[in-house]
Amino acid sequence: MGHDAKKVSVLGLGAMGAAIARSWLASGYEVTVWNRTVGRAEALVGEGAVVAGAVAEAVAASGLVVVCLLDDASVGEVLADVDLTGKDLVNVTTSTPGQARERAEWAGARGARYLGGGIMAVPPMIGVPDSGAYVFYSGSPELFAAHREALAVPAGARYVGEDAGLAALHDVALLSGMTGMFAGVSHAFALMRGTEVAPKEFAGLLVGWLTAMAPYAYGVAAQLESGDYALGVTSNLAMMVEGNGTLLRTAEEQGVSAELLSPLMALMERRLAAGHGEEGTAGVIDLLSR
Amino acid sequence: MGHDAKKVSVLGLGAMGAAIARSWLASGYEVTVWNRTVGRAEALVGEGAVVAGAVAEAVAASGLVVVCLLDDASVGEVLADVDLTGKDLVNVTTSTPGQARERAEWAGARGARYLGGGIMAVPPMIGVPDSGAYVFYSGSPELFAAHREALAVPAGARYVGEDAGLAALHDVALLSGMTGMFAGVSHAFALMRGTEVAPKEFAGLLVGWLTAMAPYAYGVAAQLESGDYALGVTSNLAMMVEGNGTLLRTAEEQGVSAELLSPLMALMERRLAAGHGEEGTAGVIDLLSR
Ligand SMILES: NC(=O)c1ccc[n+]([C@@H]2O[C@H](COP(=O)([O-])OP(=O)(O)OC[C@H]3O[C@@H](n4cnc5c(N)ncnc54)[C@H](OP(=O)(O)O)[C@@H]3O)[C@@H](O)[C@H]2O)c1
Ligand SMILES: NC(=O)c1ccc[n+]([C@@H]2O[C@H](COP(=O)([O-])OP(=O)(O)OC[C@H]3O[C@@H](n4cnc5c(N)ncnc54)[C@H](OP(=O)(O)O)[C@@H]3O)[C@@H](O)[C@H]2O)c1
Repeated sequence: MGHDAKKVSVLGLGAMGAAIARSWLASGYEVTVWNRTVGRAEALVGEGAVVAGAVAEAVAASGLVVVCLLDDASVGEVLADVDLTGKDLVNVTTSTPGQARERAEWAGARGARYLGGGIMAVPPMIGVPDSGAYVFYSGSPELFAAHREALAVPAGARYVGEDAGLAALHDVALLSGMTGMFAGVSHAFALMRGTEVAPKEFAGLLVGWLTAMAPYAYGVAAQLESGDYALGVTSNLAMMVEGNGTLLRTAEEQGVSAELLSPLMALMERRLAAGHGEEGTAGVIDLLSR
Repeated sequence: MGHDAKKVSVLGLGAMGAAIARSWLASGYEVTVWNRTVGRAEALVGEGAVVAGAVAEAVAASGLVVVCLLDDASVGEVLADVDLTGKDLVNVTTSTPGQARERAEWAGARGARYLGGGIMAVPPMIGVPDSGAYVFYSGSPELFAAHREALAVPAGARYVGEDAGLAALHDVALLSGMTGMFAGVSHAFALMRGTEVAPKEFAGLLVGWLTAMAPYAYGVAAQLESGDYALGVTSNLAMMVEGNGTLLRTAEEQGVSAELLSPLMALMERRLAAGHGEEGTAGVIDLLSR
C-alpha cells in the first residue's frame, strides 16, 4: 500500500491524458501508460513512463487507474474485456451525468470502486501550481479518501458528492454558464465593430464589467433558496425588460443580429407578462425546467 | 467661473437622478433641482437643494445642467422650449447611440455644448467611494475637461470619444455582454435543480469560474485585431462543438430547455461547417454583423 500509493496507470494519452500523466511523472510517481496509437505512449518513455503493451497490462500495473479518453463510448470499448476486480477506477473522460452514473454501476458490477471526474482546465494548466485548474470528482468517497494526495497532483481536486454523475453535472453546468457568457461577449464585440475603439481596449472594459457582475449569481442563489424571487432586487424585471428595448434598438442601429440575446429577453417578457415585474430574473429558471 | 464650478442643476429626480443630486449635495455643490412631480424635488430640500419651479429656471441657475430622465423622448419634451444658449448639457438618460448623436446635434443647434452619458451602476452605488460605479461619457471634449472634477463626484468618469453616441454604445455593449452571462447563469442553475447541491454553494463555483473565464475576451480581441481567428487558441471550434453535444445531452437528461444556449451553438456549427474548425469563436462575430 505504501508503495502502491505512488503508482498510477493512465489510459489515453491525448492532449489531456498526456498532460495528466506528465504531472505524475514530474511528481515522482511510477506511471504506467497505455494509448491506442502506441507512438503517443512512447513519447513519454524519456520522462520515465512505463509503456504497457495492452490495456489489461496497464490496468494490472497499478491499484489506481485513470482513464482519459475521447468519450464514454471509447471508455466502454477500451475496458470491455479487462479484469477490474479490486481496482480504483477514476474516469476523467468528459461524460453526461447519466453516462457517468451508468459507468459507475458498470464498474461496480466488475468489482471496481469508481470516481467520475470533470476537468475544469485546458492541458497547459495541468500540473502547474496556482494555475487555478481543478477537477470535480464524485462517486466513491472511500476511493477519493484513499487517493486524495495523488488526485491533487494534476490539478486541485474537488469532491462534490457520492452520486457519480454530480462531477459531470458540475462540469457541464459551469461550461454552460460560460457558453452564455461567450454569447454575450460575441454580441458585445459585434456592436463595437466599425467604431474607432480598439478591440483590446474594449476587452478591458468588458472583462472588468463581467467580473463585477458575475456575483449576481449569489443573488439568484439567495432567491432560489428563499423562494422569494424579489429578494434583494435592485433592478427588477420591469426595468430590465424596458432596458432590453434599448439593447435591441442599438443592435438594429449597429446592424447586429440580436439572436444571441433574444431568447433570454423573450423569457423575461413572459415572466413580466405573468405579473412578476418586481422580481429579478430567477423566475426565468422556472421557465427553463420542463 | 470659480463659483460656477461648484454649481450644478439636475433635471429628473427618479431613483437615479435623486442619487446623483444627493452625491453633489454631499460634496458641497450648490444644486438646483427640478422634477415633473414636484414632491420628489421637495424631498431634497432638507439636504440643501434649491427647488426650481420650472425647467427654464433650473437651466438658468447653473452653467452645468445634468439631465436624468426616463428616456430620450422625455428629454426632448422637457427641454423643448428652454433656452440652452451657452449651457453645458450632460445627458445621462439611457439612450441608443443614434438617439445620443441626434440629441447632441439638437443641443448644438440650440447653442449648448453636449456630453452623452451611460451609467454603469445602480442608484445605491452612486456617490459611494470605491463602489466601482462609473459613467461613460462622450461628446464635447471641452465640456468634459471643464467639468471633469464635478463629473467625478457621482461615480468614476470615463471619457470614450468625441462621437456623442459612443458612451451609449459602450453602455449597451457591456449590458449586452452581461445579458448573455445572465442567460448562461440561468441555464446553469436550471441544470442543478433537483440535486442535493445548495444554490449558494453552486453560486460560489459559478462566480469563480465565470471570473476566471471572462479574460477569454482578451483572446477574442487579439484575434479581431490580428484578423487571425486561430491566434492563441487552446480549445478550438471543432473541440467546442464536440463539447456542445455533451452540454445538450445533459440539458436533455436534466429536463432543461437549451433555448438559451442553442443560438450560439448554431453559429459555432455554421463556422465549423464553413471550414474554420481550427479557429476560436471570434468568427461568430462575423456571422452576427449584417
Ligand atoms: N483538451 C482539453 O482542453 C480538455 C479539457 C477538459 C476536458 N477534456 C476531456 O479530456 C478527454 C480527453 O481529451 P483530449 O484533449 O486528450 O482529446 P484528444 O487529444 O483528442 O485525445 C483523445 C484520446 O482518446 C483516444 N481514443 C479516442 N477514441 C478511442 C477509441 N475508440 N479507443 C481507444 N482510444 C480512443 C485517443 O487515442 P489515439 O491517440 O489512438 O487517437 C486519444 O488518446 C475528453 O473527454 C475531453 O473532453 C479535454
Ligand atoms: N435605476 C437604475 O438602476 C439605472 C441604472 C443605469 C441607468 N439608469 C437610467 O437613468 C435614467 C433614470 O432612471 P431612474 O431609475 O431614475 O428612473 P425612474 O426612477 O423611473 O425616474 C424617471 C424620471 O423620469 C421622469 N420622467 C419620465 N417621463 C417624463 C416626462 N415625459 N416628462 C418629465 N419627466 C419625466 C420622472 O418624473 P416623475 O417623478 O414626474 O415621474 C422621473 O424623474 C433612465 O434613463 C435609466 O435608464 C438607471
